[in-house]
Amino acid sequence: MTAPNRATLWGETLVEELAAGGLEAVCISPGSRSTPLTVAFAKHPDITVYSHLDERSGAFFALGRARRTGEPTALVCTSGTAAANFHPAVIEANQARIPLLVLTADRPPELRDSGANQTIDQVSLYGDAVRWHADLPVPEADERAVRMLRTTAARALERTTTRPPGPVHLNCPFRKPLEPTPVPDSVPETFETTLAGRGRDGPFVTRTPDDARLEAGPKTVREVAAALESATRPLLVAGPADPPVTSVDPDFVLDLAEAVGAPLLADPLSGLRFGPHLERARESDRTGVFGGYDTYAESVADPDVVVRWGASPTSKSLRNWLRDGDCRQFLLDPAGEWREATFTATDLITADPGAMLEGVTAAVDPNTVDPGGIDWLEAFETAETHHWQVCTDYWNHGDDRATADGLEGALLATVIERAPDPATIFVSNSMSIRDADRFGRPRSADLTVLANRGASGIDGIPSTALGAGSATDDPLVLVTGDLALYHDSNGLLALERCGVDATIVVLDNDGGGIFHLLPIESFDPPFTDQFKTPHGLEFDALGDLYSFDVSHVTPDAFPAAYEASLETPGTQLLSVSFDAEYSHRQREALEEAVLERLE
Amino acid sequence: MTAPNRATLWGETLVEELAAGGLEAVCISPGSRSTPLTVAFAKHPDITVYSHLDERSGAFFALGRARRTGEPTALVCTSGTAAANFHPAVIEANQARIPLLVLTADRPPELRDSGANQTIDQVSLYGDAVRWHADLPVPEADERAVRMLRTTAARALERTTTRPPGPVHLNCPFRKPLEPTPVPDSVPETFETTLAGRGRDGPFVTRTPDDARLEAGPKTVREVAAALESATRPLLVAGPADPPVTSVDPDFVLDLAEAVGAPLLADPLSGLRFGPHLERARESDRTGVFGGYDTYAESVADPDVVVRWGASPTSKSLRNWLRDGDCRQFLLDPAGEWREATFTATDLITADPGAMLEGVTAAVDPNTVDPGGIDWLEAFETAETHHWQVCTDYWNHGDDRATADGLEGALLATVIERAPDPATIFVSNSMSIRDADRFGRPRSADLTVLANRGASGIDGIPSTALGAGSATDDPLVLVTGDLALYHDSNGLLALERCGVDATIVVLDNDGGGIFHLLPIESFDPPFTDQFKTPHGLEFDALGDLYSFDVSHVTPDAFPAAYEASLETPGTQLLSVSFDAEYSHRQREALEEAVLERLE
Repeated sequence: MTAPNRATLWGETLVEELAAGGLEAVCISPGSRSTPLTVAFAKHPDITVYSHLDERSGAFFALGRARRTGEPTALVCTSGTAAANFHPAVIEANQARIPLLVLTADRPPELRDSGANQTIDQVSLYGDAVRWHADLPVPEADERAVRMLRTTAARALERTTTRPPGPVHLNCPFRKPLEPTPVPDSVPETFETTLAGRGRDGPFVTRTPDDARLEAGPKTVREVAAALESATRPLLVAGPADPPVTSVDPDFVLDLAEAVGAPLLADPLSGLRFGPHLERARESDRTGVFGGYDTYAESVADPDVVVRWGASPTSKSLRNWLRDGDCRQFLLDPAGEWREATFTATDLITADPGAMLEGVTAAVDPNTVDPGGIDWLEAFETAETHHWQVCTDYWNHGDDRATADGLEGALLATVIERAPDPATIFVSNSMSIRDADRFGRPRSADLTVLANRGASGIDGIPSTALGAGSATDDPLVLVTGDLALYHDSNGLLALERCGVDATIVVLDNDGGGIFHLLPIESFDPPFTDQFKTPHGLEFDALGDLYSFDVSHVTPDAFPAAYEASLETPGTQLLSVSFDAEYSHRQREALEEAVLERLE
Repeated sequence: MTAPNRATLWGETLVEELAAGGLEAVCISPGSRSTPLTVAFAKHPDITVYSHLDERSGAFFALGRARRTGEPTALVCTSGTAAANFHPAVIEANQARIPLLVLTADRPPELRDSGANQTIDQVSLYGDAVRWHADLPVPEADERAVRMLRTTAARALERTTTRPPGPVHLNCPFRKPLEPTPVPDSVPETFETTLAGRGRDGPFVTRTPDDARLEAGPKTVREVAAALESATRPLLVAGPADPPVTSVDPDFVLDLAEAVGAPLLADPLSGLRFGPHLERARESDRTGVFGGYDTYAESVADPDVVVRWGASPTSKSLRNWLRDGDCRQFLLDPAGEWREATFTATDLITADPGAMLEGVTAAVDPNTVDPGGIDWLEAFETAETHHWQVCTDYWNHGDDRATADGLEGALLATVIERAPDPATIFVSNSMSIRDADRFGRPRSADLTVLANRGASGIDGIPSTALGAGSATDDPLVLVTGDLALYHDSNGLLALERCGVDATIVVLDNDGGGIFHLLPIESFDPPFTDQFKTPHGLEFDALGDLYSFDVSHVTPDAFPAAYEASLETPGTQLLSVSFDAEYSHRQREALEEAVLERLE
């Protein structure tokens, strides 16, 4: 490689190394100081560039892509507050284990803390929210420096995906000229950045984490197997999956579930509530995949052994039920992290869940398995049947107002039930994900349901969804409340700029419906002005601004409108108005009805 | 004070202490964990609450209010990524010395790093960008704890305004219940948060920084006076002011300027380019206030003594001229910080600029002042006259295209020239502030011109402007490019929610016009796609979304439309289209014409 100047040399070498390491996509926000990176990315044939004008939205778009694929996605911005706009997405990536490589351009060291324009302290900008950060030296045409650059680039990229995956920050200072303008003597003509003596093709340095499986030792495997063998009420609980959602092979899960006669409670974000493996589970009389537990878990007998993996389950009543049961609970985590706010697990096992489940299955002796498991499974099947039956009855034959005003829960049920196969469904925080958990019925369709549950913010929702949508040809559905839509309305620019189509379902209750669930509801003021915060925004204008269709749909008409949108090219926003308070009362009534039947 | 539970007690005591310390306004974003703070702020009679749905915009709104007034403004958000959305504004506040008090609600310590929902590491979230940060204990009904709370609140508020002012972060963990729900035995009935033994009214603790002046010692004052006495080409340079813009008394400046025969180069953000003191300067034959120096500074003889204050001047050619002159340069700074990227000052004097200027004036012996100053002043007057004459000629009689397409510079000139008296004018970064610097002609009207020059980002521009506008009854003008408008389009919600009216002038060149000034312009691709980034957004839809009028105005029709808007209640957005590249060429031509005349 030859280059007109050092900044260009540096940018191109860095990008070349990242491409060699497998980086396939980058989200770039325009800026001057980042020119060497932007130019190098834009000309690289193997890397897709997504241009984002708002760094905050761009970061969430990259997050969504990396969440959907499990592959690292890079971010580029110029110096200054631009980099701070990445912070919310970096925090989500940290907590949700999403591989983001953050490249922030910076002024050279001689301008830092000098009063120079657009110069801030970027070096440890994200604090402990990144797995690793490094401040690169300024570009030099020097073999050792290039060796350092290539190694650092490779190390940074690799660190985004090792246990646990997460964000890595490289701060990249550049001196002018930033453009590929020839500068005499900046780079010696004979200078070679492709360093000799490597003995193989590919990235400058590699580690091989991707095909390594982290397995627990035989003693641990036997201990878990023995606990399950003697359990009369064994339970498997799949929490929100680390990306990608396919990270745990469903067959390993079902093999163990069948071997020990355990029901599987599958979080909507676990990658196990939906998918072809549901057919196998349905045919089995030794296990089943359950999704209605948020309503009924606390009415079922306590488990006596629990094996869990993934993040803390979305369902609060499931978490409470697990906490209150007095039994041994194994938590499998590849990074050995205790991710459970209810402090429930007894044994943390540092191992890849898939590998561990496979190992335990092989270790279980079928002859010693407690036969009590069948009644236990039936209890779940009965409860699950009642749950869905009550839901269906309720939505079809609720009181008059239910028919007229609809129920947010019914809408989430429809979104999941009628989604095409395959589809990617991104669900916002606050009420939407709770309703998806409670009312998203297990299906054998290949649905990838995603949400930002690392830090559970309502920021960056449309961008994360569109980023996820950019990664596959699946139809994309975004379900969001009106506040989250407003919060990242800038993210909708990516529909056109990044060529993503979506069906956007907005549950519009003009403000923060979730606050109706909280005791603050009875203190008004300040409830309405400071919590519910009705804003009166009419989102039709967003459609005009970002060139997509907006329809206002009644709850009754929603199923047909939703199906029509999924068959229509381009993007449609379906706005469905709800009375948040009424919807919440109906959720409570529905839960009571299920519990009544179970009694 | 009695309270139904500890969280309420804590929130009310904290807010009471802040109000006693003089806090008058807070920007609150809705959330659950922050309920004790929100409830306490909402019911306090002396604090104005502004509700913002997007924390990023809310933080910039608070920044704008604090920038305009110089008074601390508080921010409240819930736990999680909400707090990270404050980060860009916190960085700007740090670098521009703006008093912001950031209150982030947090989960209690037992849930941190546990996998609990919406729980991140908030304690040192803003790194070195805050003057001070503290993690409050969880609420307790204990005298010593309340004593600590009151002291910490008072200290935090005070630290936002001491030299140099800036952001302070209090992390506020709360346990449930968060609402003012009665909890038996949570707070003893006899518990008293108004602690006895203070001997006076007012805040629990105070320091008196506000009426203290930081003066340099007599030796230093004499040294500066002596240097100015013997100078033949003394120069005063006022950079962007610390907030408020009235922080340096113009009379102190003009007293010294007249005493030593020094011209005053006044940055548009210095608080000295505009205002009634211009009348006095105009009548003086010993000084003058100059604003066209960006064009001509490098053609004038070098100064032989410079006295400067404020941040680094906006004008790059001024900075370069000061750097290249071989002379003694005194930099006055109340916080003793070296804020100059060109490394030009020889003597940093830690003192309040006003106090220092007053002291030096008193110390100057009129009999020893070098009389050469008069020619020196005339050189500036001649150059300044040519500058404005060329500008006027150019805008009235430019080539045909200039008349048809207009010039961005002419627009900024009009905005400032025809602004009502008084007015607050907020100018975006990138091209707008540069044009305001070059083409904003000194006026004796009371114009407060503001910009975010701490970190010079293009984020948060509309919000900062509206925050500034909320602080006074002045008419508010915002001048912004299309990218900055898009970046913080969410901020426009504050027009209605916070009751601020504005005339918004959008210089729409469909993307990043400033990149035409950079060498990257000649590398296309990637220039258009990754730097200029045309987006094609039609901002009419923003008017529909946020309920204001949008007019598309030709450059010719702009002056009349602008004046009409200023006389019309409500908010109007005037969109003026420019060809960024052509406008830039015309800026170059104009500069050449001035320099030609000066030769």
